Formats: sequence, C-alpha cells, structure tokens
Amino acid sequence: MTDDTRDHAEALRGFLGDQGLIAHPAEMTVYETGARHDKGRAAFVARPSDTTEVSRVMAYCARNGIRLIPQSGNTGLVAGSTPDDTGLQGILSLDRLRRVLEINAHNRSVRVSAGFRLSEINARLEKHGLVFPIDLGADPCAGGMVAANTGGARFVRFGDVRRNTMGLEVVLADSEGTVERFGGALRKDNTGPDWKQLFVGTCGAFGVVTECTLNVELLPRQAAAAYLVPAGDDSVMPLLSAVEAKAGSYLSAFESMSGAAIRKALEHVPSLVNPFPQGNVPALVLLVELTRSWNPREGEASLDTVLTSVLGEIWDEMPDHIEDAYLGRPQEMWSVRHAISEGLKSAGYVVGLDLAFSRDTVMPFCARMRNELATAFPTAEVCEFGHVGDGGVHLNVVLPRGSDTAAEAERLRDFVVKAAVEEFDGSFSAEHGLGRRNQRYYDRYSTGVSKRLASLFKSGTSPAPLGAFDIGGSEK
Amino acid sequence: MTDDTRDHAEALRGFLGDQGLIAHPAEMTVYETGARHDKGRAAFVARPSDTTEVSRVMAYCARNGIRLIPQSGNTGLVAGSTPDDTGLQGILSLDRLRRVLEINAHNRSVRVSAGFRLSEINARLEKHGLVFPIDLGADPCAGGMVAANTGGARFVRFGDVRRNTMGLEVVLADSEGTVERFGGALRKDNTGPDWKQLFVGTCGAFGVVTECTLNVELLPRQAAAAYLVPAGDDSVMPLLSAVEAKAGSYLSAFESMSGAAIRKALEHVPSLVNPFPQGNVPALVLLVELTRSWNPREGEASLDTVLTSVLGEIWDEMPDHIEDAYLGRPQEMWSVRHAISEGLKSAGYVVGLDLAFSRDTVMPFCARMRNELATAFPTAEVCEFGHVGDGGVHLNVVLPRGSDTAAEAERLRDFVVKAAVEEFDGSFSAEHGLGRRNQRYYDRYSTGVSKRLASLFKSGTSPAPLGAFDIGGSEK
Repeated sequence: MTDDTRDHAEALRGFLGDQGLIAHPAEMTVYETGARHDKGRAAFVARPSDTTEVSRVMAYCARNGIRLIPQSGNTGLVAGSTPDDTGLQGILSLDRLRRVLEINAHNRSVRVSAGFRLSEINARLEKHGLVFPIDLGADPCAGGMVAANTGGARFVRFGDVRRNTMGLEVVLADSEGTVERFGGALRKDNTGPDWKQLFVGTCGAFGVVTECTLNVELLPRQAAAAYLVPAGDDSVMPLLSAVEAKAGSYLSAFESMSGAAIRKALEHVPSLVNPFPQGNVPALVLLVELTRSWNPREGEASLDTVLTSVLGEIWDEMPDHIEDAYLGRPQEMWSVRHAISEGLKSAGYVVGLDLAFSRDTVMPFCARMRNELATAFPTAEVCEFGHVGDGGVHLNVVLPRGSDTAAEAERLRDFVVKAAVEEFDGSFSAEHGLGRRNQRYYDRYSTGVSKRLASLFKSGTSPAPLGAFDIGGSEK
Repeated sequence: MTDDTRDHAEALRGFLGDQGLIAHPAEMTVYETGARHDKGRAAFVARPSDTTEVSRVMAYCARNGIRLIPQSGNTGLVAGSTPDDTGLQGILSLDRLRRVLEINAHNRSVRVSAGFRLSEINARLEKHGLVFPIDLGADPCAGGMVAANTGGARFVRFGDVRRNTMGLEVVLADSEGTVERFGGALRKDNTGPDWKQLFVGTCGAFGVVTECTLNVELLPRQAAAAYLVPAGDDSVMPLLSAVEAKAGSYLSAFESMSGAAIRKALEHVPSLVNPFPQGNVPALVLLVELTRSWNPREGEASLDTVLTSVLGEIWDEMPDHIEDAYLGRPQEMWSVRHAISEGLKSAGYVVGLDLAFSRDTVMPFCARMRNELATAFPTAEVCEFGHVGDGGVHLNVVLPRGSDTAAEAERLRDFVVKAAVEEFDGSFSAEHGLGRRNQRYYDRYSTGVSKRLASLFKSGTSPAPLGAFDIGGSEK
C-alpha cells in the first residue's frame, strides 16, 4: 500500500466509520477473490451503509482519480466485481446496502436495496406466493444481478433481469456523486428514453445501482419434468418447437446437457445418482420442465399427466426425432443439471464460455466445436450444457491442469469466440455479464458507432473511471 | 411551397424516382393527417424503397437542414408521425420498405422491414402457428410500433414491443445517413450497452428504424373470457391477484371498462348488443381472458371449465369483492371493449389520456379524477377504460364539441397529467408513445440529468433535427 492509498483509505474511514472501511490485507482477501479464476489486490474496501454514503465515496474517489470496482454478491464468472492486481483500485462493496425490501403484492413488484441476496428476496416473497423468477445456480445480490443482467434456467418463460427491471436508483461517478432515479414501479412508461436500460448489463461502467424495483411472478405450485433423449443434434429444434406448441405457457425450462457434462457430474459429485437405465449416459439429454402457479382442480389434469400426454403425442407424431423419454421428480431431474458446474470444476481447469445464438444455431455450433477442438486442442474435453430453449449454451471445456493451462485456456477461448461471433452470428457474452474476462472481445467486436456512443454516454454519466470493465474500449 | 422546398423535393425525386417522392398537395393529405386531431402540412413526402434510399434521403436532409418526420402506419394517437403546420418539414414515409419478411420458426422470431402492417406480419406467422403478441385496436406498421413501443391488451402476458425486440437496423440523421445494426436474432446478449433500447419508444428522435427482428409467440388455440363485476373500486386489486394466483400463466388479459365507457359504446355502435341482464350496465366491468396455445387433451379441462372453476373459487373465497360474473364467447366479450374508442369518438371531442401507474394506484386515481373533474370541468364525461392488469388506463374524457373545445381539452389534459405525475407517481405516456401532444409534459417532468443525456445521445446519433418530438426538450 502506498502512502497515497493509505491516506485515501483513512479519509474514507473518516466518514464511513470503522465498519465501513476495510484496509487490512487479510480482511480484504474475500472481497479480492472472485468465483472463477480471478484474484486481485485492492487499495481498500469501502462498505457504505446507504445511498448517501455511496454518493460521498464515489464523489471522493472521482475527485481523487481512484477507480472503484462495485461489488455486491461477488458471484460473477467473468471478473466483473474484483479489482485488478495493481493494488490501486478500491472495492465499493454494496453488502451493507440493505435499507429497503418492500413488497407490493398487488403490483407484483419488489423494491430492494442492492445488497440483498436473491435467496433473501425470494424468502420474503414466498410468503406472498411470489418469486423473483431469475433461477440461478449462484446466490448473487440484487445490485450485481442488474449490473450483469443475469439470465438463468427459466429464461424461456420469464426472461432476464432486464425484462424484470422496472426502476433503478443509480449513483454516478462524477465529482458530486449524483444520485438519480430512472423509472419507478411502472410496467408501462414511455415518457422519454429508457435510460435505466444502460445501467443493466454494463458492469457498473455508467453508474452504480444502489436500489431497484423488480417485477415478480407467481410462485410455482406444481411442476413436472422429463428427460428427452433426441435422436441426434438435428432433432433438438423440432422437439423444442413441438413442446412449445403443445405446452407453451406451461414451459418453464428447456435445457440441454451433453453426455460429457453429465458424466463429469456423475464422476465427481458423489451424492448424485445415475438416473439412466443401466447407467448408460446418452450423448445428449434435454431437460423439459412445466410449471404452473396453481394446484390442479376437479377435472383438471395434473402437470405430470399433461407432460405424459405431450411426450406421447410427440412420440406418435415424430418417432424419428426421439430416442427415449423419462418422467421424473423435478428436483431429482434438476440435481444432475445443477451438479454439472461442480463436476467440471473437480475434473480440471474449466474454460467457461457463455455463448448465445439464434436457437436453431446452437446445436450446429456445438457440433462444429466438438469436431474442431478435438484436432486443435486434443487435451480439451468439451462438456457443453445450457439453455437451448433461449439460444444460450455454456460451451465449457475442461483442460488438464498444468503449468501453461491458463495461457492454453485463453487461446482456446479466442478460438471458440471467433467462430461463435464471426461465423455463427453469436454472442460472446450471453448471461454472465461483462468483466475483465471478455474485455478483449468487446474491444474486438463492438462497432465504431457503439464504442463512440459508449464513450459519449460515459462522459455524460460517470466521467471518472468506474468498474472492472472499460465500456469505451480498453485501448483508449 | 417555397422555391427552396420545391428545389429540395426535386433533388430527392432525382434519386428516388417519381414513385418515391410526392409533392402534390392533394396527394400529401393522407400523409399529413393523423389518427387523432392532428393535421399538418408537409414540404414533401419521401418514400424510399430500401435502406440505402433511406440513408440517401436522410443524408441529404441532414446536410440541408430539413427536418424529416418518420411515418409508417400513421395510426398513432399523440401526433408523433405527422408534420407541424409550417410546411417546412418533410415526411419520411416507410410504407415502401417491404423487402424483408423472414420467419424463423425454430427461433420463434421474424425479421421484418419497417413498412409491413401488423396484420400482414400476423397473417404470415399464422401458417407457422405463431403470432406477434402485441394486440392493438389499430393496425400499425413494424417501424412505428418500435418507435412508439406500443403495448396493448395482452401486455400482462406478453409485454410491450420493447420486450419483444431482438434486433434493429437504424439509419441515423447525420451527414452520411449512417446505417447501423443493433442486436440480431438473439434472446440473450450482454456484449455491451444495449443501444437498441434507445431507439425503442423515442419517436425516431435518435434514428429511423428500417428493419427489426422480433420475438414471436405461439398462436392461441383456445380462449375463455368472462366479465367480472367488482363490488367496488377497492375490489379490483384483490380480484386481479386472485385470478393471477389461480390461473397465472393462462391469463392473457385483465381489462377494465367503466360503465360510462360501455354506455358510450352501446349508444353509438349500432351493431353492438348489450350483454348485461335487463340492459343494466354496471359501474365497472373487468374483462378476464385466458388463452393457451393447445387444444385440450384427454382428461384435460377446457379453458371454459378452468375459468368457471376459478370464478367459483373466487366467489366462495371472497364473496364481498364480487358482485356478478358472466362467462361468454371471447369474441363477443371483446366486441364491447373494442367498440369503446369508436363510441367515444361519436359522442364528442375525445381527450385521450394514456396513463400508467403502479397497479394498485389505477383505481384510486380514477376515483379521484371522476370526483375532481365533475367540479373543475362540469361538461366533461370521464369514460375510462384500459389495462388494469399492467397498470395502464386510458382515462379518456368526452367534451361536447364547441368553439373552444380544443383549448378546454388542453386545460383538462394539464389538470389530469399534473395529478397523475405529481401526486400518483404515474406516467403521462404509457403505451401510445411520444409525439407533439405530450412534448410539454416531457419538457416539464424529465429530470435535468435525463435531458442532458438525451441531448448528448442525440448529438452522437442523429445530430440533425429528426422526428416530431424534441428529445432534448423543446425549449433548447
């Protein structure tokens, strides 16, 4: 720590108090360490307890040229909430921003401070029969979910955080730490440009989200799930279209899991039971889930019955596309899907690629990558899984751990992203947000107009450096 | 027409051809006349046939300081697609932009040029069992729907145009007529700021939408509908919450119609049959609609049965909130709702107020206005109706036609908007978009930050004047 940063830390302690400022290296470690491969070094961790304190911290840092890295749950996978390794950046932790959690059941909305965990919000909503419908493996905080625009496994039904964001309170990185509200508790509002959209999914580059008002949905009361084994890659889209046509508004998830991903989960997560006959894992499995917010009434079929009918019809109408189908208890069916991340992590060094495509392009892309990576990166194991129902796929690759693994991982990442973007019109950042990990793809693939607008908008919102991501491009 | 504008019109005719340029007054009238009270005078109507021609027209006009007013279906209600009365503005009609209408059934998306009507898009989608789920009384074109961010009667289930917009092609009003694409056919994409959002709902101020890629939904195969008569205003929210809890993912509309609005429809639309016992129109009627994309299977209850059960349960559980309920054929139930606009128009001068609130605030606001307007504007008849399921309400008021009606209408409009925004945290522009009609409310109620960002963003996209709405404020 330089004298300068020590002085700044002490100045901030002056108005945040001891609880609000951490500068001891051992206490900072947990804030400096991200969820996937990222570990930085911070000048300090500022922990303001309300919006006014956030504003004061941001004004101070803007005036003194200190880059703050906003952080709430710190569960992100793209190095968007951790500092770099210079030791000069401050972490702006939002974990004490917990003043407001107001549910408006009639409006189906919740107003919540940035520092509440998703699980906490949902625990409170449950009493009203409501849920924030973003379904994730991790347990992020509200602020980070907005900054990353997280998606998740129920996107096909409920969309992403963007779709469910009604209003934001934002603090800007200018010399006054300006506090501004965009939107409110309204679903419909066309009173001007919808500026709040620029603070969603931009990793805090334009300002820090301190509070948000979110749309919430009815809590599912009933669910049914099945594994479908498609006859091949080409059968996935016909099956998806058929399930949608036959059970549209019930459909809450349509996930894909490659056999390779399932095997890693079964090998490395001891609690998991192999659900397939004779333990034979198929090359590709689709997880279909139907849910509804009410229990069946007199004369109304249960969702299990509905799903059985749907699958029976599909079997009759398109026998060439389906090899097998198993109904099961939703929780057990999801347990395989949810164990994949842990399975891969235990198997080696995970290169996480969070991609999205037009839905019909997901499987052709995966087939191509399986093929090409086998030659170009012979030690790599492609273990893709994801959200084929919304065009998302985690084309994750496991590399054996070794001395140059990190460098090899970056070469592989470049190889896959190049094909995804340049040949398949795909997205290099589907639902994990922006961070240092995908900065170079933003720099490479954003258009000139887009970068120019970003610099301009940055100058008008938060002219001081802010966040782990350079929105105007990193080479400016 | 001045010599100057005549020269410009001829210059444009030079590269658009005779079909692409109208300057004869009689032929321009239809383009100069809007759908509600607006009638302007144009210098010319340019009708480019593709994006390249749009770009050339816009570059020419940007260089020569001619403000273009983009217009597609010209069905808007806020004077957003017609010129002012100076005769100096050019209309940029998109009605010949009809090159692309590509359906990707597996991706549930359609890529469409700005000049296609909603009805045309849906006719093509129907063959695939799909529909663009924005349900409107009018039949606008794709470009205008994006520019206005229209909502409609199925918002509660499918959202607005914004939610369903995946990608845009936009032409900017700069000296090059820059063509830029934002987004594509992806549902998930967090590769940078989501700039396309700024072209949705901003009346073309930042650029002209020439093509869009839209999410589409499954065509409903089955529907059921009922009128609910709530015991009073206070019963509307409990009834809405109960219907959502009991039939959540089936619910496709939850509309409100005041008795006054229904009576105007019955009086002035001769084809309409009074559906109420003894012809007694209740003070308030809720129209509930359930739909699903599949026909009932063996053992699966029909939607009529489901709706009957839902209403029966509500009757049992909350008898104090419900006075009456009628099931009926959906088409007949909607016929009353759809006749309201025509009914009001025949009854007098309509002051259309397109407002939105937190859902629980809609009815208290309406009650307040009914009360206050009775005193402040004794000749005014409040005939509100709308989309209480999403917080929207058309608090439309009928004034007797007279010599100073237009001025009286503006005073009334100011009165209602002031209460809506300042006392009820509402929106003065819910789903009809921005136009000259609500310019003064934008000027009055937008924050300084918001206006500053608008000017900045305008300078970076379309520095030349563009559109019927001044996004940086009209007094700049």
